[in-house]
Amino acid sequence: MYPVSLEELINEFEKLPGIGHKSAVRLAFHVMNMPEAKVEKFIGAINKAKTNVHLCAKCQNLTDKPLCDVCASEKRDRSTICVMESPKDVTALEKTKEYNGLYHVLHGAISPMDGIGPDDIKIKELISRLTPEVTEVIMATNPTVEGEATAMYIARLLKGMGITVTRIAHGIPVGGDIEFADEVTLARAMEGRREI
Amino acid sequence: MYPVSLEELINEFEKLPGIGHKSAVRLAFHVMNMPEAKVEKFIGAINKAKTNVHLCAKCQNLTDKPLCDVCASEKRDRSTICVMESPKDVTALEKTKEYNGLYHVLHGAISPMDGIGPDDIKIKELISRLTPEVTEVIMATNPTVEGEATAMYIARLLKGMGITVTRIAHGIPVGGDIEFADEVTLARAMEGRREI
Repeated sequence: MYPVSLEELINEFEKLPGIGHKSAVRLAFHVMNMPEAKVEKFIGAINKAKTNVHLCAKCQNLTDKPLCDVCASEKRDRSTICVMESPKDVTALEKTKEYNGLYHVLHGAISPMDGIGPDDIKIKELISRLTPEVTEVIMATNPTVEGEATAMYIARLLKGMGITVTRIAHGIPVGGDIEFADEVTLARAMEGRREI
Repeated sequence: MYPVSLEELINEFEKLPGIGHKSAVRLAFHVMNMPEAKVEKFIGAINKAKTNVHLCAKCQNLTDKPLCDVCASEKRDRSTICVMESPKDVTALEKTKEYNGLYHVLHGAISPMDGIGPDDIKIKELISRLTPEVTEVIMATNPTVEGEATAMYIARLLKGMGITVTRIAHGIPVGGDIEFADEVTLARAMEGRREI
């Protein structure tokens, strides 16, 4: 019933996560009513993010510089690497200001059910970073079946290398998502980590 | 904490209606992970909709042709014009397939509180369409203070022109429960009762 071009725009919005048909209609109408300059700014932001943002050469977190701010900082403790599933998890932990080491972002977790094996996430990039300087690797994957399996897999890989492997513990409810944990809970989880 | 370009994209998403911070982050990450071709299709849909969609020269509904499908159709009854606040309202009524006349979209309602007067909505475009062919104008604005005021204002304008002005019926929604109807709706339902 709407003009074809508008239907197509509604369609595109509907493909985005968490956007149902009614939200897609509302968003499309909003864009239709936006001044040209604001639409250009919106499209520009998409293009700029797609062009500038890439993975940090060391920790695989998202960055728009050759190295991310954490890897480039001279104030961070280079003996500890906290391994997380996603850049959102890193942001959540950074907000607590409780952690001063480095990060490593796996971009996923091992999940045979979804056909995701150890080679599909950034595990070999982690292994190649393990210089003698690194004394502890903290496994901060999500407390889900996939996150636990990934933590165990990596722990087993590192066991023979003389590196202490720890797992964040108390605080994060099982089945929960690190991204949405509150700062205190996340800080407790860091504090209570134990060797695995 | 996210790279600047990504923060800017999150920011842009957050400006859209009904999108909070967490949804904006999720959407930005989704776009970051979309293949280049899909991002181009999304941006293309926005540009195409902005370029192609404009107001129908007659009824002011959205269209990508000179005249909208309803105004261009030879099957529609040209003696009746249904006046609605928004293109979404037209789509809702078209879905019922109960109405075969023409439409007129006001793009809003008179609302002195928001500084919207009669000249800010498409009232003069309605008046200019009222040829002798038109015998009935149905006021289908929303049953809100603004919608009622707009209906009354237009009805008064058309009174002297020999055109029947009607108002859609208000009452208990089909499938609704009398027990839970608000007093105004119930009063309207009583007032609008018809012999069976």
